[in-house]
Amino acid sequence: MLVRLLYASRAVDEKMCDIVQSIVSQSRQHNPQHGITGVLCHSDQVFMQVLEGGREAVNTLYSHILRDERHTDVMLLDYEEILERRYAGWTMGQANMSKINPSILLKYSPLPVLDPHRMSGKILLALIDELMATASVVGRT
Amino acid sequence: MLVRLLYASRAVDEKMCDIVQSIVSQSRQHNPQHGITGVLCHSDQVFMQVLEGGREAVNTLYSHILRDERHTDVMLLDYEEILERRYAGWTMGQANMSKINPSILLKYSPLPVLDPHRMSGKILLALIDELMATASVVGRT
Amino acid sequence: MLVRLLYASRAVDEKMCDIVQSIVSQSRQHNPQHGITGVLCHSDQVFMQVLEGGREAVNTLYSHILRDERHTDVMLLDYEEILERRYAGWTMGQANMSKINPSILLKYSPLPVLDPHRMSGKILLALIDELMATASVVGRT
Amino acid sequence: MLVRLLYASRAVDEKMCDIVQSIVSQSRQHNPQHGITGVLCHSDQVFMQVLEGGREAVNTLYSHILRDERHTDVMLLDYEEILERRYAGWTMGQANMSKINPSILLKYSPLPVLDPHRMSGKILLALIDELMATASVVGRT
Amino acid sequence: MLVRLLYASRAVDEKMCDIVQSIVSQSRQHNPQHGITGVLCHSDQVFMQVLEGGREAVNTLYSHILRDERHTDVMLLDYEEILERRYAGWTMGQANMSKINPSILLKYSPLPVLDPHRMSGKILLALIDELMATASVVGRT
Amino acid sequence: MLVRLLYASRAVDEKMCDIVQSIVSQSRQHNPQHGITGVLCHSDQVFMQVLEGGREAVNTLYSHILRDERHTDVMLLDYEEILERRYAGWTMGQANMSKINPSILLKYSPLPVLDPHRMSGKILLALIDELMATASVVGRT
Amino acid sequence: MLVRLLYASRAVDEKMCDIVQSIVSQSRQHNPQHGITGVLCHSDQVFMQVLEGGREAVNTLYSHILRDERHTDVMLLDYEEILERRYAGWTMGQANMSKINPSILLKYSPLPVLDPHRMSGKILLALIDELMATASVVGRT
Amino acid sequence: MLVRLLYASRAVDEKMCDIVQSIVSQSRQHNPQHGITGVLCHSDQVFMQVLEGGREAVNTLYSHILRDERHTDVMLLDYEEILERRYAGWTMGQANMSKINPSILLKYSPLPVLDPHRMSGKILLALIDELMATASVVGRT
Amino acid sequence: MLVRLLYASRAVDEKMCDIVQSIVSQSRQHNPQHGITGVLCHSDQVFMQVLEGGREAVNTLYSHILRDERHTDVMLLDYEEILERRYAGWTMGQANMSKINPSILLKYSPLPVLDPHRMSGKILLALIDELMATASVVGRT
Amino acid sequence: MLVRLLYASRAVDEKMCDIVQSIVSQSRQHNPQHGITGVLCHSDQVFMQVLEGGREAVNTLYSHILRDERHTDVMLLDYEEILERRYAGWTMGQANMSKINPSILLKYSPLPVLDPHRMSGKILLALIDELMATASVVGRT
Repeated sequence: MLVRLLYASRAVDEKMCDIVQSIVSQSRQHNPQHGITGVLCHSDQVFMQVLEGGREAVNTLYSHILRDERHTDVMLLDYEEILERRYAGWTMGQANMSKINPSILLKYSPLPVLDPHRMSGKILLALIDELMATASVVGRT
Repeated sequence: MLVRLLYASRAVDEKMCDIVQSIVSQSRQHNPQHGITGVLCHSDQVFMQVLEGGREAVNTLYSHILRDERHTDVMLLDYEEILERRYAGWTMGQANMSKINPSILLKYSPLPVLDPHRMSGKILLALIDELMATASVVGRT
Repeated sequence: MLVRLLYASRAVDEKMCDIVQSIVSQSRQHNPQHGITGVLCHSDQVFMQVLEGGREAVNTLYSHILRDERHTDVMLLDYEEILERRYAGWTMGQANMSKINPSILLKYSPLPVLDPHRMSGKILLALIDELMATASVVGRT
Repeated sequence: MLVRLLYASRAVDEKMCDIVQSIVSQSRQHNPQHGITGVLCHSDQVFMQVLEGGREAVNTLYSHILRDERHTDVMLLDYEEILERRYAGWTMGQANMSKINPSILLKYSPLPVLDPHRMSGKILLALIDELMATASVVGRT
Repeated sequence: MLVRLLYASRAVDEKMCDIVQSIVSQSRQHNPQHGITGVLCHSDQVFMQVLEGGREAVNTLYSHILRDERHTDVMLLDYEEILERRYAGWTMGQANMSKINPSILLKYSPLPVLDPHRMSGKILLALIDELMATASVVGRT
Repeated sequence: MLVRLLYASRAVDEKMCDIVQSIVSQSRQHNPQHGITGVLCHSDQVFMQVLEGGREAVNTLYSHILRDERHTDVMLLDYEEILERRYAGWTMGQANMSKINPSILLKYSPLPVLDPHRMSGKILLALIDELMATASVVGRT
Repeated sequence: MLVRLLYASRAVDEKMCDIVQSIVSQSRQHNPQHGITGVLCHSDQVFMQVLEGGREAVNTLYSHILRDERHTDVMLLDYEEILERRYAGWTMGQANMSKINPSILLKYSPLPVLDPHRMSGKILLALIDELMATASVVGRT
Repeated sequence: MLVRLLYASRAVDEKMCDIVQSIVSQSRQHNPQHGITGVLCHSDQVFMQVLEGGREAVNTLYSHILRDERHTDVMLLDYEEILERRYAGWTMGQANMSKINPSILLKYSPLPVLDPHRMSGKILLALIDELMATASVVGRT
Repeated sequence: MLVRLLYASRAVDEKMCDIVQSIVSQSRQHNPQHGITGVLCHSDQVFMQVLEGGREAVNTLYSHILRDERHTDVMLLDYEEILERRYAGWTMGQANMSKINPSILLKYSPLPVLDPHRMSGKILLALIDELMATASVVGRT
Repeated sequence: MLVRLLYASRAVDEKMCDIVQSIVSQSRQHNPQHGITGVLCHSDQVFMQVLEGGREAVNTLYSHILRDERHTDVMLLDYEEILERRYAGWTMGQANMSKINPSILLKYSPLPVLDPHRMSGKILLALIDELMATASVVGRT
């Protein structure tokens, strides 16, 4: 059974770009063998990650994230059983929200900053679709 | 939470073009920091403005408009919670209704003049969509 | 409030083309100031006219048509409140049904002649749409 | 082909109750042989009548109404081809709007007075349905 | 044209029950002649009022509320053109939220307190419907 | 923002009925002040719990469950933003699946045993609805 | 494959009641072995019969009807493949239209007479449903 | 009123191509004046013809076909009242099923032979649409 | 994963009632431990059985049926993944089609005999629903 | 009547490619005369085949497959009556799943391996559609 899970969190210490690098390189090693695909969006303050894969694999990974001391304020935003993946081609795509056109964020958000802890999960998934449609998701930072 | 608000009003004294200039320059200064986007349509007699943004910011701005002595006959025409903006790319677009092709107004109105106080809000939003589709909305007068 | 009204009638005396000319020139003078748009279809025997505009203006005009002695067998075929016009670009378009490709009429009618008094109003509106789509409506005879 | 037609009008001189009596007794004589059914609503100022029947019979009757000197401001409000009648059991039902519970009118109207010339035909048909559901329509005044 | 408007506000000074009494007695005097109906919900801290009526009358009243110094944090929550009223039978119904069964509030809200400034207008309208269905709205306090 | 979350888990040591008692008495103390409602189903081997409440409160509680050493094989089964609660009347309802009519389980499951780790979340929610409809959920064990 | 067929015809000579008797007694003999069910409606002038059964059996019977010299103006009105019968309980129900309440006919027809050659097949099926719902169909004349 | 009728039949004697020629030349003479359009499909054994036109004209023609001694096993397959024709441009199109690509027949049929007496009318109409879309219908043999 | 499977077959030798007894007693023993539920319909000639259960258990049972020498002409009629069972309360219900009211069969079938090899699976499932609704299914013969 | 059947199975001995060759050459000989079309997908371990054709022909072939000793773990995955085929152009298309782009499998499956015995039939049909859309199905190995 395939599921899609979306969560947000904040970095405990401020060196966001080191953490992002570390998450991405772990994803590159870990995800292919567990069949996990997805996208990681981040600003200087906050992460938002969508994960797709088998129900057990995604639950195991989310449980690790909840216990990972580099994250705080982990909040589940959306979770559903799916018939097919949307991100099958991405081991872990990335989007740096502080570098994209601010009107993309503004389309879904009161202000042009990424603040997933105050937004609906369905709207955040629409934002990620827009990021893909505008080629704002890349394979590497 | 994002909302969209549409209202109409009339200018108290007749120098419409000065008021429009003043509203537009205030919007240019004020809107970006409050995350407000929208479009302002006017004829020689009447304004119609659609505002999008966070619910608090839009309410604060509408409350100022109701108290602004340059406006009279302020009438709320439409208001709804939205999932995404339609005018994310416009700090404040403008359309001078006395300069557009009259058949655009005639499509939605009994006579080719802008008379929003007697029309349905949903039809006025369709008219604004048509103005955008026909490139009748511009960034400056 | 905008409405669309469709009616059919027959000419009392046979000089159809004179009557058509007269209706069209009256429409050219009268309609713009009252915000009325529409299309007039005729064969050698019968008229069918669709009128769009404000509810009062269309009612006033239809009341004159019912009293106009050049018409007989005036029959209302369709009437509805509309959100937008379909014929906003035509002061009064015209289609001479005896000159069009007979398969257009046949598509909606048992025989390739215009006989609106025996047809449904909705089908006649579909026929007028087909006439517009096939460029069979012109600005002048 | 069955149609339903709704119109409003005003009495030219003020003896509304005489006119109503006269319309109702004419309807009693005329309608059965022409297969016309319907309901007449009136206040002290204004009529509103819905007519159902064959398309020719309803058109003939409406044409007489438009020429009847006791009426003025005759306005067509709704007209449609129907598959079945709603008022098959009424030769001509009546409702005196000045005698009904004002909250019935208020449900569909800004103020508790019958003002059909300013209302949508579809809403007026809903009002007539409510009158029937609340037994406000009677066979005689 | 009928509209329905929902707003929330807070009392500037704390004698809520005096303000409620004053609003209700003003509504009793003012609303019938302007065709306004509705419901007022309040806790010890906060108001929420839904108003139905003609578009001009509702706009005039809302403009007075925005300027009324007894209110602060006035926030528009929902506004729409309607075909029929839901509260036609209430000059101004009342519900004291601190006296109702807390599970009614909990059904629509994270905690059993009325906090309309943080909730969606559509959900608040569903809450008011539930209050009516459970006979929690009364004619007087 | 309200959410509903469904998860399953297994007891680490086998004294299921002690654990259930402990969870229920913790829920009785903890849930009211955090606005959490829900239902707990269990067999001799396995738990399944549905939680409703504010998004932050539900996330905090689920994070504690994931770290609670009495549970293992914790698996998220369903999570969605909701407009209204289904279980607003239950601080924490309970259903002992080993005591209910086996045909209720059989209706949704290949064998008449509760095995949520192999079932779809949507089907498990339908099972819980059926338990409520058949009065199989109680306030205490 | 089951089908439903509706046709109308007229009696060649005027002794309608003899023909009806003869059709009904033939139906009683013939239909059970061929699995045909249905309803026969007639006035003094005209028949209308709906037949349900296997596609071959209904076609064979309709072919005989077309050649039966007691009928003229046989007109097919509706024919469709069906998943289940509506008249499974009637070998051949009957309704004498000159004896029913005229408002039943008037509901579907311009005048209270049965004139199926000028009506839509779908409306006639609705009329037959109404006859069944009002117990106007009987097993014998 | 327009109808569409689909039937199948078999040739009594085997010279199919003579019969087809004769039907087509009769159609060319007869159909234009009666407003009938359609398509004739045949294999070496079997006909299938779809006819569109006024209800009376189509019924008269189908009655002649049932009595025509060159046909046997005439079976009505579909009949419906239509708002517009699909074959308005064809006096009588033809498709020789023994010459078309067998995968077109196989798409709708268990074996690549035309056997309309065992197929649903709706599927046969879909097959005729496919024949038109693949240019397998021609004006002459 | 739950599935529902419907098949038909014929008895090889004619002692139908012995075979039915044998199937039913085997079902009573075998089905509960494998979680299979369903209904068996039979006439003197033919069986039709609907089976619900886990996908593997139903496949294993159907494979045995295909190899069972008491059956011939085994034909799969319907198979689908289901979210919930319809027959959860029946270990193996039975209906003897030669004893039920023939109009039940006639409603779905050209003749009042059970002939599943020539009928659509969806229609046969509707017939079984009708048998249950009319209490024609029993626990024992 | 056309049906579509999808099943999976495993090879008893490991020389998969010989078995595939043998199935394909048998299909080439057998299918055209029985009107069967379809696609065969295989990895090194497992088959999945979709068959379309007349209901009897498909049932006969599936019965042979169930008895064919080269297969084990035969599991029916989907079966439905269809109005038209999807694979009319393929006597028996083939796709070797170990040679395709792994992201195609990953889109529908937790891991990039073909494991039809654990997947829903509808998802497997979507996978086969994707194989066709990406030209991964060929006429020969």
